[in-house]
Amino acid sequence: MDAVDVITAKRDGGELSATHIDWVIGGYVRGDVAEEQMAALAMAILLNGMTPAELGRWTDAMIQSGERLDFSGLSRPTADKHSTGGVGDKVTLPLAPLVAACGAAVPQLSGRGLGHTGGTLDKLESIPGWRASLSQHEILAQLDAVGAVICATTEGLAPADRKLYALRDVTGTVESIPLIASSIMSKKIAEGTGALVLDVKVGSGAFMKDVDAARELAETMVRLGNDHDVSTVAYLTAMDTPLGRTAGNALEVAESLEVLAGGGPPDVVELTITLARAMVSLAGLDGRDPADALRVGSAMDVWRRMISAQGGDPDSPLPQAPETHNVAAADSGTLLRVDAYAVGVAAWRLGAGRARKEDPVSPVAGVVLHAKPGDAVRAGQPLLTLHTDDPARFARAEQALAGALEVGTSTEETPLSLVIERVG
Amino acid sequence: MDAVDVITAKRDGGELSATHIDWVIGGYVRGDVAEEQMAALAMAILLNGMTPAELGRWTDAMIQSGERLDFSGLSRPTADKHSTGGVGDKVTLPLAPLVAACGAAVPQLSGRGLGHTGGTLDKLESIPGWRASLSQHEILAQLDAVGAVICATTEGLAPADRKLYALRDVTGTVESIPLIASSIMSKKIAEGTGALVLDVKVGSGAFMKDVDAARELAETMVRLGNDHDVSTVAYLTAMDTPLGRTAGNALEVAESLEVLAGGGPPDVVELTITLARAMVSLAGLDGRDPADALRVGSAMDVWRRMISAQGGDPDSPLPQAPETHNVAAADSGTLLRVDAYAVGVAAWRLGAGRARKEDPVSPVAGVVLHAKPGDAVRAGQPLLTLHTDDPARFARAEQALAGALEVGTSTEETPLSLVIERVG
Repeated sequence: MDAVDVITAKRDGGELSATHIDWVIGGYVRGDVAEEQMAALAMAILLNGMTPAELGRWTDAMIQSGERLDFSGLSRPTADKHSTGGVGDKVTLPLAPLVAACGAAVPQLSGRGLGHTGGTLDKLESIPGWRASLSQHEILAQLDAVGAVICATTEGLAPADRKLYALRDVTGTVESIPLIASSIMSKKIAEGTGALVLDVKVGSGAFMKDVDAARELAETMVRLGNDHDVSTVAYLTAMDTPLGRTAGNALEVAESLEVLAGGGPPDVVELTITLARAMVSLAGLDGRDPADALRVGSAMDVWRRMISAQGGDPDSPLPQAPETHNVAAADSGTLLRVDAYAVGVAAWRLGAGRARKEDPVSPVAGVVLHAKPGDAVRAGQPLLTLHTDDPARFARAEQALAGALEVGTSTEETPLSLVIERVG
Repeated sequence: MDAVDVITAKRDGGELSATHIDWVIGGYVRGDVAEEQMAALAMAILLNGMTPAELGRWTDAMIQSGERLDFSGLSRPTADKHSTGGVGDKVTLPLAPLVAACGAAVPQLSGRGLGHTGGTLDKLESIPGWRASLSQHEILAQLDAVGAVICATTEGLAPADRKLYALRDVTGTVESIPLIASSIMSKKIAEGTGALVLDVKVGSGAFMKDVDAARELAETMVRLGNDHDVSTVAYLTAMDTPLGRTAGNALEVAESLEVLAGGGPPDVVELTITLARAMVSLAGLDGRDPADALRVGSAMDVWRRMISAQGGDPDSPLPQAPETHNVAAADSGTLLRVDAYAVGVAAWRLGAGRARKEDPVSPVAGVVLHAKPGDAVRAGQPLLTLHTDDPARFARAEQALAGALEVGTSTEETPLSLVIERVG
């Protein structure tokens, strides 16, 4: 067999055999299949698709390319969550301790931000002393002692995905449902969680711009999870406007603390509780309501222990931006639209995100929203405050926001409801 | 602009702008566009096609990537021929001196064989002393003095094509009509010929297996040529069975000499005269009939001068294989089929072709046909003789020929006529 055989089979609309798939993924990790060959194959997959049988085998081969974690020795059932990424999506931060407070072990292996979406690890690193990298042993010990861990994905999980993801990023082959689904699910299955709740974002600030594509991705991932003995459900949730009132690293940690303290923006609370209930239920812990754990403060207790266990000081004040700038409403009326993608790009340009993997991020940069769609606003009232270390960044952030804020009286367009539907 | 913008535009079915195309071809030659990015783009082009406007610009950008030859100082009109490649296709060898004998200058810049199709330079290198590499100055001087030159493509012509062709070969992106057409035509246009006749092969031994695809390729190339002020026509010709009675380097030179001497297999003679008449006519030399130039021996005179000018000895005996092996007819009846692809692979395995660009080829290896489809044959009669340096190669060559020779009485399938149609 050689790589051209595999590429031409997919190019010509055929189904790849198990032998094809195992050979090409193994060869790619070993370096026998060149980057340009995998790029051509990825484009052929993007344009010609994959059958469920191909996708299952492809995901298996990605899992087999590396090591697997084993949580079977834990006394608690495991439950994990994955979001496809959005603007202001800090839900992992209150969710992990909340679900742990309900009795599950939550092994939340996370990534960093790239482009306009933030990364969970970047957010937590704004807490003085907190560290993202844990060994397998530390992960297991913390799950046993605290019940929740949010840390960097270990190097050994699905190395084929690490290599393929970097390639897709530079070859225009990111937006393929089978490639997205196998990338996410190979890591989550290799991680060894027993239950998984997927938050598939839909709208301008998400990968998936429409509900049909998001539903197809959700169904694909739910099938893959259940076929691999991970109890999996998915929610399609709105990402046309930022989640909550903040986008940025320390800003989102502060908002998460409000939620853990029983307050916080209603949309963040609603989504956190919806996902927490699903995780608790899939973990077989029916009868524990996450809303109670928020109310009585037990989720905040787990948070404090989780942060301390990774070297962070939960009592340390969060860093604040030295420079802020308000963006005011141009008209009076109803705030009709705050575009998620534009706010994400603005936060990124202010310093909260990175253009390349190796770039640093600012803990303090970001955007605070003073009003949400549906609110009445007056001309001149601040709608957003931009935060940054470097005032030279305001101009490009404001350019990103051109046309992103709409004030008017029209009520024709019905915004997406926050939780659109459940899949699985 | 970055490469991902160009890739995603084509991936999503859009038309690439002139700016996209110029940027991506220039960047590829400079190394700013990586091999994996061009591979993804090539696959997107293969699957989504190109409009005539895109293809014209793509070809222009390939031409602009390198130098151009200039034949405007010659006293004769120039005419060139390109074949898309087949088994036993030695027509360039008698054709170039024949057309020169009719008054044109024939700058036949050629390539080497790869896989089952032979290369014109490999064939001529079986003539003791002959050399393929000429400088631009030598090419011009020989065209002036002799009227015909067959030599290696100079390094500076369309370097983008050289790089892209090597990439397509390993990424399953060879079989794209716009990419094939721009590859061939960028070199021919950069070469600077005034007239061009294309021989587009159809059948088992050719790239194009069916007439419709071959016609589309022919029409695409004819349009590109005429749009670039090269008077261009194409012929679709049969390649379901080998052309003539030989496939192999010295074997094909010997057969070409028979044609130049006024004999040779009727199919080689017919195709040579058809293409020569078209070249002579496009060059504006109506009134000279190539059939006369063969008959009176003036084509042979040009051949001898052409070979001598490049260091070859036209009187030197050609090398002969030390080992031969006959393949006999299994039954008596009519020879219905001699599969071109199988004979090409057999010749390759006997040593006439190469698997990688850097492999050497044997001058003596190849296949001689003792009968052609339509001939009556008797069981036990030799149908083929295999020639090689190394008798260990016979077994794999015979494997390639399994099922390739069919003897029977059926007359249901009408074979392709040699010259199927003219395009343009």
